[in-house]
Amino acid sequence: MLEKMFYPASVAVIGASTEKGKVGRAVLDNLIDGFGGKIFPINPKAPEIEGIKCYKSVLEVPGDIDLAVIVIPAKFVPQSVKECGEKGIKNLVIISAGFKEVGVEGARLENEVKEIAKNYGIRIVGPNCLGILNTYSKCNASFAKKMPPKGNMSIITQSGALGTAILDWSEMTDVGFANFVSLGNKSDLNEIDFMQAWKEDKETNVILAYLEGITDGQRFINVSRDVTKEKPVIVVKSGRTGAGARAVSSHTGSLAGADAAYDSAFAQCGVIRADTVDQFFDLAGGFSGQPIPKGDRVVIVTNAGGPGILATDACEKYGLKIATLSTETVEKLKTTLPPAANFYNPVDVLGDAPAKLYDFALETVLADEGVDGVIVLATPQSMTDPVGIAEVIARLRKTTDKPILPCFVGGTVMAEGVEELKKYKLYNYEDPDRAAYTLRQMDRFNKIRNRVYEKPRQFDVDKETVRKTIEDSRKAGISVLGLEALPVLEAYGIPTLKYRVVDNAEKAKETAREFGYPVVMKIVSPQIIHKSDVGGVRVGLDSDEALENAYNKMMTDVKAAVPHCRIHGVLIQQMATGGKEVILGMNRDPQFGPLLMFGLGGIYVEVLKDVQFRVAPLTEQDALGMIYGIKTHQMLEGTRGEKPSDIEKLIELLQRLSQLVTDFPEILELDINPVKVYEKGKGCLALDVRMTIQ
Amino acid sequence: MLEKMFYPASVAVIGASTEKGKVGRAVLDNLIDGFGGKIFPINPKAPEIEGIKCYKSVLEVPGDIDLAVIVIPAKFVPQSVKECGEKGIKNLVIISAGFKEVGVEGARLENEVKEIAKNYGIRIVGPNCLGILNTYSKCNASFAKKMPPKGNMSIITQSGALGTAILDWSEMTDVGFANFVSLGNKSDLNEIDFMQAWKEDKETNVILAYLEGITDGQRFINVSRDVTKEKPVIVVKSGRTGAGARAVSSHTGSLAGADAAYDSAFAQCGVIRADTVDQFFDLAGGFSGQPIPKGDRVVIVTNAGGPGILATDACEKYGLKIATLSTETVEKLKTTLPPAANFYNPVDVLGDAPAKLYDFALETVLADEGVDGVIVLATPQSMTDPVGIAEVIARLRKTTDKPILPCFVGGTVMAEGVEELKKYKLYNYEDPDRAAYTLRQMDRFNKIRNRVYEKPRQFDVDKETVRKTIEDSRKAGISVLGLEALPVLEAYGIPTLKYRVVDNAEKAKETAREFGYPVVMKIVSPQIIHKSDVGGVRVGLDSDEALENAYNKMMTDVKAAVPHCRIHGVLIQQMATGGKEVILGMNRDPQFGPLLMFGLGGIYVEVLKDVQFRVAPLTEQDALGMIYGIKTHQMLEGTRGEKPSDIEKLIELLQRLSQLVTDFPEILELDINPVKVYEKGKGCLALDVRMTIQ
Repeated sequence: MLEKMFYPASVAVIGASTEKGKVGRAVLDNLIDGFGGKIFPINPKAPEIEGIKCYKSVLEVPGDIDLAVIVIPAKFVPQSVKECGEKGIKNLVIISAGFKEVGVEGARLENEVKEIAKNYGIRIVGPNCLGILNTYSKCNASFAKKMPPKGNMSIITQSGALGTAILDWSEMTDVGFANFVSLGNKSDLNEIDFMQAWKEDKETNVILAYLEGITDGQRFINVSRDVTKEKPVIVVKSGRTGAGARAVSSHTGSLAGADAAYDSAFAQCGVIRADTVDQFFDLAGGFSGQPIPKGDRVVIVTNAGGPGILATDACEKYGLKIATLSTETVEKLKTTLPPAANFYNPVDVLGDAPAKLYDFALETVLADEGVDGVIVLATPQSMTDPVGIAEVIARLRKTTDKPILPCFVGGTVMAEGVEELKKYKLYNYEDPDRAAYTLRQMDRFNKIRNRVYEKPRQFDVDKETVRKTIEDSRKAGISVLGLEALPVLEAYGIPTLKYRVVDNAEKAKETAREFGYPVVMKIVSPQIIHKSDVGGVRVGLDSDEALENAYNKMMTDVKAAVPHCRIHGVLIQQMATGGKEVILGMNRDPQFGPLLMFGLGGIYVEVLKDVQFRVAPLTEQDALGMIYGIKTHQMLEGTRGEKPSDIEKLIELLQRLSQLVTDFPEILELDINPVKVYEKGKGCLALDVRMTIQ
Repeated sequence: MLEKMFYPASVAVIGASTEKGKVGRAVLDNLIDGFGGKIFPINPKAPEIEGIKCYKSVLEVPGDIDLAVIVIPAKFVPQSVKECGEKGIKNLVIISAGFKEVGVEGARLENEVKEIAKNYGIRIVGPNCLGILNTYSKCNASFAKKMPPKGNMSIITQSGALGTAILDWSEMTDVGFANFVSLGNKSDLNEIDFMQAWKEDKETNVILAYLEGITDGQRFINVSRDVTKEKPVIVVKSGRTGAGARAVSSHTGSLAGADAAYDSAFAQCGVIRADTVDQFFDLAGGFSGQPIPKGDRVVIVTNAGGPGILATDACEKYGLKIATLSTETVEKLKTTLPPAANFYNPVDVLGDAPAKLYDFALETVLADEGVDGVIVLATPQSMTDPVGIAEVIARLRKTTDKPILPCFVGGTVMAEGVEELKKYKLYNYEDPDRAAYTLRQMDRFNKIRNRVYEKPRQFDVDKETVRKTIEDSRKAGISVLGLEALPVLEAYGIPTLKYRVVDNAEKAKETAREFGYPVVMKIVSPQIIHKSDVGGVRVGLDSDEALENAYNKMMTDVKAAVPHCRIHGVLIQQMATGGKEVILGMNRDPQFGPLLMFGLGGIYVEVLKDVQFRVAPLTEQDALGMIYGIKTHQMLEGTRGEKPSDIEKLIELLQRLSQLVTDFPEILELDINPVKVYEKGKGCLALDVRMTIQ
């Protein structure tokens, strides 16, 4: 898929310019500089450029064209795409700007282009992009100045500028690429298409992406879940703090923020999210140049104590284990390292260590079965030989499948070693913190690629009741449902408390006697959201008399607090004593769709905001991750003598909720708050609900 | 103070060697290479080295010697120090190793040296260090290879290797130093002495330190609180996760970890703690080359959208404000920037912007009164002129007192701009995240230097009762006190509940009637710590009958649970209903002394570990910071209709506790758990206490 996009036999440049400095000329020059296939400049006015014959149109070109790059003004692009279609060209890179990004007229033009392309079965990169390139076919179909060094990474970027910065970085560090794609407006091909294509690309081992948004969240999850089984996908997603486009009338919505869906989705599908440009580069350097560790046990080899402590701090901060060296390893180290050295982890070869002592120490610790990866620290002391140490690392790199991350700390002196490392495509970490961060993410990827994805469980449910409730509400013009939505939960097997809405005190007492005292009474009014704030909730009513008094007081209080509210009556509910309160919720994310939330209720959600999100549909593992992901999960496991809560049932409930909101896109928001969780084996009960429908 | 250490007129090198490569020769060569004062090599065997006359001993040297550097084997050092004393030398740098760091014999030797030096009034740097240097006097009294560039920073390092790495970095980045000190074993002079000295040093604007430990915590706090009123102090302290040397039988102790005291102390005295080497370098670059901002409103000027979003994310992450540009500024930008530019913050001058457009945009936003600082982003696009942009920044740097942080993102191409920046002592941030972090810390320093330090409040207290309680307990061989320590709290004005220990049910009932039912009953036994776990706590006892039954059951239960415990009786206590439970505690840190803790009680401390620490003595601001520093402080402010708690009284209590533990170093650990805080104006009550004495 998309092979001829990156490995074309022939490329046309539509808008090739005779004038140096123009984009249309830069693209042509880039192709001339290395690409071995046929190049066809398209320019109706010039007979040739740089000695290559020009054509007035692609239609005049003899033979096939695998790829065309368009660099002409936007208004001429539709006609040009039509000609490409007639010519049978299937791959287009539209560099020209002036489309969706400039407003309504541009968007119209872009749609026209899309339509034409679709009719001819043409795939498009762009418009409004920097172009694409491949270092193996040497096809630089972009106006980026230089071809980056060859490598095993492929990158998708939604910002052309960041793309050029990355290429510039690549030239400096010699960390190389296979494919480069600047997405532009994503009129057709998007990040998901390239991830999918590069999964099969034999030159690509690592996929990188800078994204500002994702086109189709659910497809992104499915594809990237598949890709990350084989290749690491590293993403920087900007706009963390930007305002989202999401409705926020629910708890779930207000807690989700603009970025929770991205974080959740990336975690669910095994995409590694870098937070900063440094992290992005560091991960690129690590994943492209080092093997994936089999575990998280790290050994630090250093020529100085201080940096060794800093590295240890960093490893522990990121959750790596400081490996315990075997007795044999320690004994072997003692045979050759000076007596003042440290033979335990961090292994300190001392400040005057020559490169061969590094060699010995590294070879020894690498042989230890209790070691999964190594960080090699070097500081510029009087005897330090940075080039020699770099050579040692390069040699050992070939003898082991354990990662060896170099961390040369310093400046001018260490730079010689860093240059030497580059020759072997080894990336240096200037700060032990960055080496530890990278190694941790590599260990995470090892777990990601080995994890088994189980399909979300499907329960037998009663769809009809839900459909009818939604239909009836729509007919009645109701978009926000309260307790009247409890049957929706019951229909999906989420147990709810016995309850009934009644419209006078007499019926309230009858109902209470039927359910059995004590009961809870709640006001039923579409205008009232926070019932307890207006005196609309009374608990522990244990007799006819108490109930009647409470009823009368509630009517007075509520009317006083919200004078013009419509009161439908009161809800009489069984009293739910004991158990722990949790909240389950759902809000729809514009990119990813149903975003589920879980947390402990009351203060934990209101003050601590201690909640977890996942994108539905939910696997059992996802549900488990939500529950154990909250900081206060111990509360459900039983602390200081309390019995553990029914976590199994909670996992089921989350999956049932997932199925409900996946089956019914009409449900826009849903808070089940609180759900009572009883002790293990005794289940859960939903006490209240708030559901917004479309 | 210490002036002749850094600006000597004459230096002796004791152990100057004729052999190239030896440390004793390296020091001499370093001095010869630049130092303008007199140099006296001391070597009993050589007549001269490099044409400079050698002396057999300092005693033979004609005239004064301001500074002597010792590089002879450890065993000869005491004699040599004695001769220096005789000669009247007051400043010594002992580079020689083989002292405390090698064991008992070395420690003995080091003590001997200290004694001799003390008798002669000699101040010592080291032993076991790299040496010291000053770029103004050009006195390189170290074996570090090169003199770093001149600059306004001075650095203390407890790791020689990190010191050389920093000097190497300094050479590469051209961020320069005034003074450099490698501390070594700190036998005499330590980090605090140099901070104090450099407060007065006119060449030093920024103080940096790499520390592995602090010699005298309380003095460190006092001195650095004073220094940070004028100059920023930036510290990397390693060993975050190392095991502390602290007793941990209390809640406070187990929650404090090894590093809480450092974090608290640094925050209290305004020291800025960098977590990583990168952060350390970035802060050095920012503080040394940029003015301190007057506020936290940042504007980002960029030639690309993507990096602009990343910078915005980073600013918001670190708590900087994205400045709102004034209408005039926006209008002015519109006059000259192209129509497709972004005139709001981040200001996007677009990818083809020449340097003069940066100049215009920067000058315009710098003139806006709503802007406190600028981050200038540049990415390598086709028209980008990194050198030109660097020159623009350098020019504007001289025209404004607002910081302008350059952030050139890329590699080879941008490196030219970074080189140009260096010429003007401007440090580049490779990642917008790092620029934002630095600007945030500079803004923090602006607040630090402006803050007013109020002395801890002193209360009228009854020291005698505390002294007597401690004395009596010691006589009785008791080191852990329970409720019997409540009078200690009362003596310091911390209100406690009425209580009495009785040894039979009859007396229990009498007492309860006197206090008024309901009451709480607790077992009193030195063997039982977690009373409620063994049935040793009963609450809400509201009648003689209930009390008697509870008494009998408690005796049976406790004996069953802890068969051999000694039961002193039961404690009858007033029932404390309502209020919120908090915990106040103290644990002694080996470096900083009394470390106070505050948190909400129960689950908040046990599961969430949501607590704050401060080193005593405590100011009112410190106490306030503890209370508002916990994540759950809203619980005390009143959430959803609840009344706010008596925070004022809590602040007083924390200060009273601070006074108690400062007055009595014999108190090793103290947990007051729980303290009930009632609503505003109604005070607090300590319900239980656990105190460990020496």
